[in-house]
Amino acid sequence: MTVDEHSVGIVIPQTQYFDQPIELACGRSLKQYELVYETYGELNASCSNAILICHALSGHHHAAGYHDENDSKPGWWNSYIGPGKPIDTNHFFVVSVNNIGGCHGSTGPTSINPDTGKAWQRDFPPLRCRDWVETQRALMQALGINQWAAVIGGSLGGMQAMRWALEYPDELRHCIVIASAMKLTAQNIAFNEVARQAISSDINFYNGYYMDHGVAPKQGLRLARMVGHITYLSEDGMGQKFGRELNTGNFELGSDEEIEFKIESYLRYRGDKFSDSFDANTYILMTKALDYFDLAREYNDDPVAAFSNASCSFLVLSFTSDWRFSPQRSREIVDALVAANKPVSYAEIKADFGHDAFLIPNQRYQDVFHAYMKRVIEENT
Amino acid sequence: MTVDEHSVGIVIPQTQYFDQPIELACGRSLKQYELVYETYGELNASCSNAILICHALSGHHHAAGYHDENDSKPGWWNSYIGPGKPIDTNHFFVVSVNNIGGCHGSTGPTSINPDTGKAWQRDFPPLRCRDWVETQRALMQALGINQWAAVIGGSLGGMQAMRWALEYPDELRHCIVIASAMKLTAQNIAFNEVARQAISSDINFYNGYYMDHGVAPKQGLRLARMVGHITYLSEDGMGQKFGRELNTGNFELGSDEEIEFKIESYLRYRGDKFSDSFDANTYILMTKALDYFDLAREYNDDPVAAFSNASCSFLVLSFTSDWRFSPQRSREIVDALVAANKPVSYAEIKADFGHDAFLIPNQRYQDVFHAYMKRVIEENT
Repeated sequence: MTVDEHSVGIVIPQTQYFDQPIELACGRSLKQYELVYETYGELNASCSNAILICHALSGHHHAAGYHDENDSKPGWWNSYIGPGKPIDTNHFFVVSVNNIGGCHGSTGPTSINPDTGKAWQRDFPPLRCRDWVETQRALMQALGINQWAAVIGGSLGGMQAMRWALEYPDELRHCIVIASAMKLTAQNIAFNEVARQAISSDINFYNGYYMDHGVAPKQGLRLARMVGHITYLSEDGMGQKFGRELNTGNFELGSDEEIEFKIESYLRYRGDKFSDSFDANTYILMTKALDYFDLAREYNDDPVAAFSNASCSFLVLSFTSDWRFSPQRSREIVDALVAANKPVSYAEIKADFGHDAFLIPNQRYQDVFHAYMKRVIEENT
Repeated sequence: MTVDEHSVGIVIPQTQYFDQPIELACGRSLKQYELVYETYGELNASCSNAILICHALSGHHHAAGYHDENDSKPGWWNSYIGPGKPIDTNHFFVVSVNNIGGCHGSTGPTSINPDTGKAWQRDFPPLRCRDWVETQRALMQALGINQWAAVIGGSLGGMQAMRWALEYPDELRHCIVIASAMKLTAQNIAFNEVARQAISSDINFYNGYYMDHGVAPKQGLRLARMVGHITYLSEDGMGQKFGRELNTGNFELGSDEEIEFKIESYLRYRGDKFSDSFDANTYILMTKALDYFDLAREYNDDPVAAFSNASCSFLVLSFTSDWRFSPQRSREIVDALVAANKPVSYAEIKADFGHDAFLIPNQRYQDVFHAYMKRVIEENT
């Protein structure tokens, strides 16, 4: 562990139990649920410095710091959350929550269904971004917060942040949308469909009831993640990182037991790791939520009308090499906000690592993000 | 069937048996092999009007015309081969061959290994483009042809055409390379690796010996093809064709038995069809040949040196929306040819359908291709 002065240090996840039923967008409800979350920094006396972090497809509550002294890796957004970092924990009280439907402690497919006494598995209700907004809002109220200084998210997290701005306009002052989109393209839906098919065609999937059989569709989840990895990286980034380099020094054609290109072993390694730690039903549920998200659907497909309700300020960020959530998708958000006469800042960051760029240290990204967050602090003092 | 005046009509595949062993690039050899091929048009008296068509990953010998009166679909390149078409069968004698390693009749993994009396399956030797050039050359000699008027191929077929120009410079007058590359990018290798992993993690793969068990890894092959389909189409083309259109008229969230987006049902349909008709070991073998192809490897990674041996003329074509074999890859071929002082024509065709554009009717593509082929005819008269 390298807990330096810019780390939030050791953090302990907390759990909030909710016994009020929640009506979900699909028409079903959860009688009760739990949210696992972490906080970094201190809530001020006026409760005006709280920030909500919304996670993406494979994310969770552990966004910054370390869980113990022996932790080899910090939280997933440690580069951007901490003392002196863009989301500066010297000034902000940061709340990072594992969404319902997830598999890192919050109520989801691996939790017990109180009606049956057995794990939900594939019977867990399908979710939409608005369901996450509702549960995040319940947590907000439990923490005594009336308004977020900012709601921040990348990718699927950015969709939640936008939904917050539409649903509860008075309860956030800033909405920060990174590498996101108002809806997925057909190509994005297609990649998600391949991921779901990879999982559901695994012999160990058992139509989603694999926990009943004491197994998990790891091969399918591994494949799904491999597809994700390729598409979340850029072609150039992958070329720079791996090129056509061979694992062995020469061309051993015929030895097809061997993994010959470095890119192959990298993908297998990442796929294996992910499939050991993630739940397949959660992966399906999250990709479906991505596919279904369509910001303006209930506004006659008019994003200007959708945003007209918003009363916060917006920061929109995109990355040049991101081809699954391309800068064009972010510019559509900005165009709609401008047309709706909302305050919006936009930056397109030159970055090599595709969609993953939103997680990776990058000087200009840090500078733009930090500058914006300083304004959020100044407004509040 | 719609055999019009621009079709080559009913064609009958032929088989050529070779009893001379062939030494393969991997160091192993095939004692004997068969090639299935079709021909369109007539060989002229001087045997100077022969064209070789090299197929791509999932292709075969049936490039034009129909197999019988009830055939619902013509050969895979029917739009470009026939009387009055760019590859004009009123002038040319066209030879289209199923490569060894294939699964449409030529010797491949599903053929009997004469040493064991059983199907080769995964023990079939791995192949490289140069092996296909050698077998195509054996067929050429069997047909009494000393020189091709042109060797033509798209994608993996273009790699074979380039290899012809390097290995047997005096035996072709024109080399036509469409939507191809001198070597794959890391991203392309990565997509191929996912396809192979999808196949090999299928419970019915049996380490490649699935024929012994009377089964086939159809689920894996289906997934592999779904990934291929997404990546061979362009994002815009897919958006135009499917958008985010739903199969049902409304948003049935919760009915996750259902296929909700049209793009999903299209991918499943295409994947199912392919997995019923293609051999998984062939798919693995072909993707490996793609990955390994590296035109200039034996020339100190200098493509100019590689091409310096060539004595034919070149036509190179690329398509604007092709992101797996992008125009940049074609321009690299052209740049190397120019630097090697070889005659080369190049056109980048505006087209919406990604890599698949090389198969699809497109006026400018047809015009450029036709104009070049007319020059090939004129030179020969």
